Amino acid sequence: MFKRCALVLCLASSGVVMAQEPVDLDMVSKIRQEAFHRSQVMDTFSHLTENIGARLTNSPQMAEANAWTRGKFNEWGLANVHDDAFEDFGRGWEFSTASVEMLSERVQPLHALPKAWTPGTSGPVEGELVHVEIKKLEDIEKYRGKLGGKILLLGEAREYKRGEEPDSHRHDATSLEGLQQFTIPGSAAADRAKRVKDYSERQELARAVNTFFAEEGALASISISSWDNGIIRVAGGGSRKAGEPVGIPELAMIAEHFNPLVRALEREDTVRLRVNVDARFLHEENQPGYNTIAEIPGRGRKANEIVMLGAHMDSWHTGTGAADNAAGVAVMMEAMRILKAVGAQPDRTIRVALWSGEEQGLIGSQDYVARHFAAYPEPTDPAQKALPASLREPTGPLQKKPDYDRFSVYFNMDNGSGRFRGIYAQENLAAMPVFEAWLKPFHDVGATTVATRNTGSTDHIAFDRVGLPGFQFIQDRLDYFTNVHHTHLDTWDHIEPEDLKQAAAIVASFAWHAATREEKMPRKRLLEQD
Amino acid sequence: MFKRCALVLCLASSGVVMAQEPVDLDMVSKIRQEAFHRSQVMDTFSHLTENIGARLTNSPQMAEANAWTRGKFNEWGLANVHDDAFEDFGRGWEFSTASVEMLSERVQPLHALPKAWTPGTSGPVEGELVHVEIKKLEDIEKYRGKLGGKILLLGEAREYKRGEEPDSHRHDATSLEGLQQFTIPGSAAADRAKRVKDYSERQELARAVNTFFAEEGALASISISSWDNGIIRVAGGGSRKAGEPVGIPELAMIAEHFNPLVRALEREDTVRLRVNVDARFLHEENQPGYNTIAEIPGRGRKANEIVMLGAHMDSWHTGTGAADNAAGVAVMMEAMRILKAVGAQPDRTIRVALWSGEEQGLIGSQDYVARHFAAYPEPTDPAQKALPASLREPTGPLQKKPDYDRFSVYFNMDNGSGRFRGIYAQENLAAMPVFEAWLKPFHDVGATTVATRNTGSTDHIAFDRVGLPGFQFIQDRLDYFTNVHHTHLDTWDHIEPEDLKQAAAIVASFAWHAATREEKMPRKRLLEQD
Repeated sequence: MFKRCALVLCLASSGVVMAQEPVDLDMVSKIRQEAFHRSQVMDTFSHLTENIGARLTNSPQMAEANAWTRGKFNEWGLANVHDDAFEDFGRGWEFSTASVEMLSERVQPLHALPKAWTPGTSGPVEGELVHVEIKKLEDIEKYRGKLGGKILLLGEAREYKRGEEPDSHRHDATSLEGLQQFTIPGSAAADRAKRVKDYSERQELARAVNTFFAEEGALASISISSWDNGIIRVAGGGSRKAGEPVGIPELAMIAEHFNPLVRALEREDTVRLRVNVDARFLHEENQPGYNTIAEIPGRGRKANEIVMLGAHMDSWHTGTGAADNAAGVAVMMEAMRILKAVGAQPDRTIRVALWSGEEQGLIGSQDYVARHFAAYPEPTDPAQKALPASLREPTGPLQKKPDYDRFSVYFNMDNGSGRFRGIYAQENLAAMPVFEAWLKPFHDVGATTVATRNTGSTDHIAFDRVGLPGFQFIQDRLDYFTNVHHTHLDTWDHIEPEDLKQAAAIVASFAWHAATREEKMPRKRLLEQD
Repeated sequence: MFKRCALVLCLASSGVVMAQEPVDLDMVSKIRQEAFHRSQVMDTFSHLTENIGARLTNSPQMAEANAWTRGKFNEWGLANVHDDAFEDFGRGWEFSTASVEMLSERVQPLHALPKAWTPGTSGPVEGELVHVEIKKLEDIEKYRGKLGGKILLLGEAREYKRGEEPDSHRHDATSLEGLQQFTIPGSAAADRAKRVKDYSERQELARAVNTFFAEEGALASISISSWDNGIIRVAGGGSRKAGEPVGIPELAMIAEHFNPLVRALEREDTVRLRVNVDARFLHEENQPGYNTIAEIPGRGRKANEIVMLGAHMDSWHTGTGAADNAAGVAVMMEAMRILKAVGAQPDRTIRVALWSGEEQGLIGSQDYVARHFAAYPEPTDPAQKALPASLREPTGPLQKKPDYDRFSVYFNMDNGSGRFRGIYAQENLAAMPVFEAWLKPFHDVGATTVATRNTGSTDHIAFDRVGLPGFQFIQDRLDYFTNVHHTHLDTWDHIEPEDLKQAAAIVASFAWHAATREEKMPRKRLLEQD
């Protein structure tokens, strides 16, 4: 008690006045009614996952999702509905089927799926399996002249890791309390240097290996899925960029089938496989990617100020992109629908963005932010240019567009499909009492916590990096990091409809309050500008 | 303390003397040394799972396993090594590969594997998917004339069940304590009547449905795997018996792919699938199955008395039969190897049996027990004859063979691959102090508990049913009932080598003590003879 009193006194004496953040409980009631009792979030979610399916950036399904979501936005009466192109993403790619069969020394079907942006096999191919372990460029030489007509088993067996925690997890009071702790970071510069080095070496090795395997005439390569228990967790290989080496057909195989192949080769069995991957690049040249955008226009003197909601609509290719991230898209769309349905007439414009290219490095959102709000100068050094934005050295002062100062706040959803339990404040302490007030009408549905800490790795970072307030919610993780993240199990059945309804209500309410409060959302100091 | 003293007094006054069961600690030391430091259990386990693979009864792989295990027994110097035929098991069956592809309304590979003893498709077949729900015979009529050229989706979607316990589980003091509780059973007669009715109706319906689907000319049928999370859990369909209807190609599909198909048909999408199952029956006529048998002969006046060890060697077809039950086979073989390696010269003959046909109802062990030890008369009523032995009404007094009275005890392993934590006494209370004494030198490796309760569902029941002592050990269940039991994940990587070493040591020691103790193992009263 003493400490708490001391803090209040201190704040008072320094002149900071904690005015109560206003909450429009009448509007919250309307939003909750619409979100909980007339929800359409599952219709949206179901269409994206089950009618459209996986939505790899620049695939036909992603284009279908752009078109379908535009249609819904128009149907709901949103304004300024359009696809926003970001240049030069790369080529489209899709696959229809993939199979691997062990033909000898025994016969067994093996479960594997292709890495995105790797070529198909042009029908079934058969070959002897050989073990290949390339950890650095020099390792390539030991295999030169030996891989023609072979199928390559890449890397080592991985010991089975027993699941000692439940697959599915929801926060409790203790774990929410834990989120209130902030970890003071180490040296960002040293960390960045190491990440740059690792990234550059990995990229160089991947290009060299892709070229080498193709030159050798190897038929296909197989690596181990990054998770156990029959789960195929796989992202991209090859290259999406026209002109870059795409290598040979490349698949990720379940650990339970991969490890026995490693052991068979260790005991010098002759293993023959048949591989059939029906996959194809869809363009000769790099194509733009497309974000889908829509608005509820503001009214009055703040109409050109902007509140944004967003989630990435692209997904990886082996599941149906359900928790990652049809859930986020359905929630953000539903929030917009709710606002229209309750007749919301905000002061500021509320804009929703359904991003693309997120899985390849927040490409759609970053490009959008650069074109609309602010960007650091493009590096002139080719080595720096080759790095993703997050790894580049500072290139000079932020170049701001007129809308930079008209921007208030961006809310993102991409932490799986689990219920909102609060929000990460991204070290923007001035935003915290605002969020605390806005969360209060949702305490009864489990959203209670405002944490100072950062969360990363998705599209709000595109805003955060240029000093614009961008936030993500604290979510129950369910089985996001045990079963579904980037796996063939990221499907409809692993999500919870009630959680999506709850999230949509909170987003709609946050958007409403951000679009009607007196001031724009407070900003934190932009470190890069010091 | 008072109660404990009272119990001792009570036993003393009723004339029961608890003579200390002798334990040959010198032999236990030798066994532990051989089992822990010169183990070959993983070599055996690896050969069965990774060189031979799945071992469906009467498949070529099962024959290979019979031959290979005979070879090992001969190599280790065991006697009387042979395959023991049990008549009329049925036909052999095998599959090489299976694939299901969704062709419209969107394109996606789907993960499914065939039920054993169902036909293949003779190359890829394509057809429209229709939903079929047959719960009773009358339901067949609604589909008559409608299924030709179709692919059938059988049954309803199943809601995802979140994993709220860890996948893998080991006993602790509390759960072992819990095993000490005995549940007094309800009415066995009522229970049996219900099970007979359910079984007979299920069999009749399956035969009628198999015939109907084939007559209709449906291309294939798909049902849901019984577990979630991408796991294919599947046993048999069709029929292994020559002359019985085998139906159409039938597959089990992961829930994550099955449920969306149900929903697609509910919203009246036109779903087309391509199915390719390369599966075949290997015989025209029913064939015998084969158990593999070997012995360490006894010496002296008890040489014709018998101690038996066993585990079933057959498996289902989609994994490599690792925890179910190469683990048990490897442990029982290793126990025999250890006994030979330490120069054990038992009084009684120690016989090991590697059963077949267990997965189809303990067929190999039951037939063996009937031919060697005892059986109830075959029923004359055809309805009774059609039932598995466990469901038949009593047919008269047990018919004993001469070896019935020479039999001491049978130890089985088939509760997955987890570490032994004690033994189930199958309500044979007189055996409990014997087991307690024998377990004592293994307390330090986690085997401490003797529980009165029964455990069922595997080959020791063939002995127990005719009044012969047959036991199974308490085991850590690991992920047996979450990932591997009858699934495509029942593979090498899900077992723990140290657990198999521990189990082999305990089995070898139990076999030694059973084969050298003064008396045969006490028997419990045979209820069926009252």
